[in-house]
Amino acid sequence: MSASRYTYLGPEGTFTEAALRTLPEAATRELVPMVSVPAALDAVRNGEAAAALVPIENSVEGGVTATLDQLAGGTPLMIYREVLLQITFALLVRPGTGLSDIKTVTGHPVAQPQVRKWLATHLPDALWESAASNADGARLVQEGRFDAAFAGEFAAATYGLEPLVTDIHDAQNAQTRFVLVGRPARPAARTGADKTSVVVWLRDDHPGALLELLQEFATRGVNLMLIQSRPTGEGIGNYCFAIDAEGHITDRRVGEALMGLKRICPKVRFLGSYPRAGVDPAEVGPARYGTSDEEFVTAADWLVRCQDGRA
Amino acid sequence: MSASRYTYLGPEGTFTEAALRTLPEAATRELVPMVSVPAALDAVRNGEAAAALVPIENSVEGGVTATLDQLAGGTPLMIYREVLLQITFALLVRPGTGLSDIKTVTGHPVAQPQVRKWLATHLPDALWESAASNADGARLVQEGRFDAAFAGEFAAATYGLEPLVTDIHDAQNAQTRFVLVGRPARPAARTGADKTSVVVWLRDDHPGALLELLQEFATRGVNLMLIQSRPTGEGIGNYCFAIDAEGHITDRRVGEALMGLKRICPKVRFLGSYPRAGVDPAEVGPARYGTSDEEFVTAADWLVRCQDGRA
Amino acid sequence: MSASRYTYLGPEGTFTEAALRTLPEAATRELVPMVSVPAALDAVRNGEAAAALVPIENSVEGGVTATLDQLAGGTPLMIYREVLLQITFALLVRPGTGLSDIKTVTGHPVAQPQVRKWLATHLPDALWESAASNADGARLVQEGRFDAAFAGEFAAATYGLEPLVTDIHDAQNAQTRFVLVGRPARPAARTGADKTSVVVWLRDDHPGALLELLQEFATRGVNLMLIQSRPTGEGIGNYCFAIDAEGHITDRRVGEALMGLKRICPKVRFLGSYPRAGVDPAEVGPARYGTSDEEFVTAADWLVRCQDGRA
Amino acid sequence: MSASRYTYLGPEGTFTEAALRTLPEAATRELVPMVSVPAALDAVRNGEAAAALVPIENSVEGGVTATLDQLAGGTPLMIYREVLLQITFALLVRPGTGLSDIKTVTGHPVAQPQVRKWLATHLPDALWESAASNADGARLVQEGRFDAAFAGEFAAATYGLEPLVTDIHDAQNAQTRFVLVGRPARPAARTGADKTSVVVWLRDDHPGALLELLQEFATRGVNLMLIQSRPTGEGIGNYCFAIDAEGHITDRRVGEALMGLKRICPKVRFLGSYPRAGVDPAEVGPARYGTSDEEFVTAADWLVRCQDGRA
Repeated sequence: MSASRYTYLGPEGTFTEAALRTLPEAATRELVPMVSVPAALDAVRNGEAAAALVPIENSVEGGVTATLDQLAGGTPLMIYREVLLQITFALLVRPGTGLSDIKTVTGHPVAQPQVRKWLATHLPDALWESAASNADGARLVQEGRFDAAFAGEFAAATYGLEPLVTDIHDAQNAQTRFVLVGRPARPAARTGADKTSVVVWLRDDHPGALLELLQEFATRGVNLMLIQSRPTGEGIGNYCFAIDAEGHITDRRVGEALMGLKRICPKVRFLGSYPRAGVDPAEVGPARYGTSDEEFVTAADWLVRCQDGRA
Repeated sequence: MSASRYTYLGPEGTFTEAALRTLPEAATRELVPMVSVPAALDAVRNGEAAAALVPIENSVEGGVTATLDQLAGGTPLMIYREVLLQITFALLVRPGTGLSDIKTVTGHPVAQPQVRKWLATHLPDALWESAASNADGARLVQEGRFDAAFAGEFAAATYGLEPLVTDIHDAQNAQTRFVLVGRPARPAARTGADKTSVVVWLRDDHPGALLELLQEFATRGVNLMLIQSRPTGEGIGNYCFAIDAEGHITDRRVGEALMGLKRICPKVRFLGSYPRAGVDPAEVGPARYGTSDEEFVTAADWLVRCQDGRA
Repeated sequence: MSASRYTYLGPEGTFTEAALRTLPEAATRELVPMVSVPAALDAVRNGEAAAALVPIENSVEGGVTATLDQLAGGTPLMIYREVLLQITFALLVRPGTGLSDIKTVTGHPVAQPQVRKWLATHLPDALWESAASNADGARLVQEGRFDAAFAGEFAAATYGLEPLVTDIHDAQNAQTRFVLVGRPARPAARTGADKTSVVVWLRDDHPGALLELLQEFATRGVNLMLIQSRPTGEGIGNYCFAIDAEGHITDRRVGEALMGLKRICPKVRFLGSYPRAGVDPAEVGPARYGTSDEEFVTAADWLVRCQDGRA
Repeated sequence: MSASRYTYLGPEGTFTEAALRTLPEAATRELVPMVSVPAALDAVRNGEAAAALVPIENSVEGGVTATLDQLAGGTPLMIYREVLLQITFALLVRPGTGLSDIKTVTGHPVAQPQVRKWLATHLPDALWESAASNADGARLVQEGRFDAAFAGEFAAATYGLEPLVTDIHDAQNAQTRFVLVGRPARPAARTGADKTSVVVWLRDDHPGALLELLQEFATRGVNLMLIQSRPTGEGIGNYCFAIDAEGHITDRRVGEALMGLKRICPKVRFLGSYPRAGVDPAEVGPARYGTSDEEFVTAADWLVRCQDGRA
């Protein structure tokens, strides 16, 4: 039963739901909105849901700390999929409302920096008040408490509203990255365009520890795509690092780098290997010289021959 | 006039005000609470205040992103001082209230994880509802809308409340670090126990760029104390790094490392050199061999002699 | 038959013979002096001898290039043992000769810098003429062509001479290191105080290739004891490197570093792992954190569990 | 008077003389052959000669240790010029001698590996005996003691011989590099295609010292062209390194790297900056990003502005 249920950061009508619906399997699952990232993930931890979709990185706000901290602490979870969603807002109004009728607008606080310039140009006199979520804002417009709400265009139908203006956004490439999180199991299969996520704790009071950690990746030719520090909760200056590396845990270079981390760091949490959203394996270039699986196998054979006196 | 005014992240009665009051010069300044970090800093930018005290790092929540983003972007500002404050909560009640009378509690959402265990043990049936700030929670208790509020003990007097329980906190060493920010000017004088802050942008699409950046510090024996990634707003995967390094910009090793960053990075913003809070210069060990100012001067002399044929 | 024969760089009475005689098994072998390092090693290559003892490193002259080039090129050979010999000279004379009788002295050209100061002090007027080897010099004294020869004290008996003065040497710690070389077979057993020798060719025109090579060792915490460049014979600026690293090929950290070299270098020749002369395994400190065999095994187990979904 | 005299490694008719004669100023100098590299250099040290031309690197034999050790120790000297010479041999005979008349051949021992294959093909039955130098071999042919000598074609005239066969060599690109050495003075002027030579001593017992040394160059984007270890004479395992780096001491990146060496190494000896033989400055590519003189100056300006509060 729970295998058929996916939770997500609600409420309905948010970008997280839109992201979830891009996954083919979502069509056959019961999709349950939750009030917070911890709530969505706890439902997975305690078996009430098979997986949860939560935002993890935002091109404007950065890492979603609630998600990073949930993945770094508590009962272990793993990432099986990522979804990239272009974030653009629609101005949702009750049918019949025109631009000149709008005196009050609402939306999620995170939306505000995204629409600030648009507001200054097109509705310089409108009053902004934040809502608990973009979807909540839409509901408040439906109820007549605001004239317009910024939300995803897809939220219009749910709340009987109309998109008066669409494709509103400030930063170029405003994107949010979401991850599909489940209980630990075998990682997603290698596709050739993969990403591996870990959280790593550094040795105390070791000034070169971060450099050493990066060197474990660099020596094996593994590129890093993200490095995000998070406090460990053990006082100012104590950090762990959430790291996304290019490649799959079954790629030899990635496996050897992970073993290196495991040896030099007091704690490493493997968060999964999964396909990179929007990247075609056919377009991924070859690994740096000396770091392909073939070269690893050849070197391992050679080592055995040396040890056996047959080099 | 503005030189006598310091803004801070308000409202009154928060930990930020408590931190500000630890600075001797605060006694002779007009201290003005502001509704947000951007508001506190904008008052400095536009000359209405000489400086602003804002939180920048929290041992539980991590980097304060609003502050980091304000320092990384917009009109340049500089840090002149840091303050470390131990964060412990008091349970504030109206005079006469006993533990068994408490059915509802409030406080800032950030306080909740800090007091969760204490609540579960001592007030397992009390209902929690968040307030806009710790000080706001105290006010709501004063007004009778809640039975108790978690806030700093120093907030009791302001709101006519009593600390029923004090020194409540969950994480060991729950601390917040605040910075005193002003308009760019000559950095604070070197004390021998200093810290230098910069924000650095990496070269696009250069996998080893972070390693290279860290190497600029490592080669000159400069230890890093904090590295925090922040999105640049140019799309997922584009980051800048807020870095705190040990030492003062007038230390030769720090200066040479900063010049190295300036050369290899498309953009570097110097945020200041200032005394490390709570560190006695007498306890700071010597620099790694080969990185003291004396050794830098000796080497520079030698280079000139080599160039002149007098080595 | 050949298994009972060891060749060495002759002639008889040289330091190489003395070094060979420090090996217990030398007592039961036929020891055959050869005219050159290539000759001694070719006898091993073509099966006429089981092993050859040749000098490889000299604390005054440096790497013995003839030996290094023989090991780097031609039919592969392997090192199974090293011998360190303190080089001090005796002044050998015919019985009855006193210091004041000595007008002419001889010895190997390499001996000359070692005895120069002694000569200047004690025999300032004696004429020096070089001999083809220290042993040859002794023979020439025996034949009456010189009054005295510098050679190893052990050479006196062979040539019917007497050591008039002993323990003559200039440089502190004048030592020569010799290696016992055989055809490729299983390396010498691990003792805990071992050394591993390789020759490594660098990628063409790759400025950072040497740094990258050293990083393969450093990342695994493997210390280098010697690095010696040798021309590849392919033109000025084309070098290979003879490297001695601490540890045995069956130590995981060494094995992984060697595989790293194998992957990034166009050519690697494994020259053997063998006990370090004069080092008691009990005195060898532990490996750097994260590089012991136990830590390697733990990390490998962890990786498999991650790949299997059991981390 | 001495300013008009150049010494070189003799005797006359050797490749060193040929190399010296490629220098335009050689035409107006008295060229004096010396019996050894130390003798040639001591004449410079004691003022009897203005400069000495000596071989320093050989594509077959490697670094010329006598030269390297002379430059690393004793009274300091400096390199002002390098000369690259293609080494090919001519078979010199007395006029009238044909190939079938040749029963005995001679030449310098270093020449033998270069001509071995040619001999095996064309004169398989000829007996080889070594001479003290190539020129000496020619003299011995002149005197009738050998039928033919391998030497530089230019030696024929000096000894009244004829080159029967020319352009004989085994290794591809057999080259020797020579350096013109003088007393310390201002380095040669920067041309844009320069080389800087130093000798560097490593810190005792510091396993990562060599890596650290290379990092000083790598961090400033300075490529290394040669690294050659030499014993310090303080016992097995104690080495200094002769290093050739790309660029001129007045290039900022080179100067900063040299100062780095000076700080972390117990001893550094600057051996000069001089034009790279055979390299046209117009063909030298730009420095790595962030390492040009302009970028160094810009960064230094920025640092001063930061220190002054004008960044």
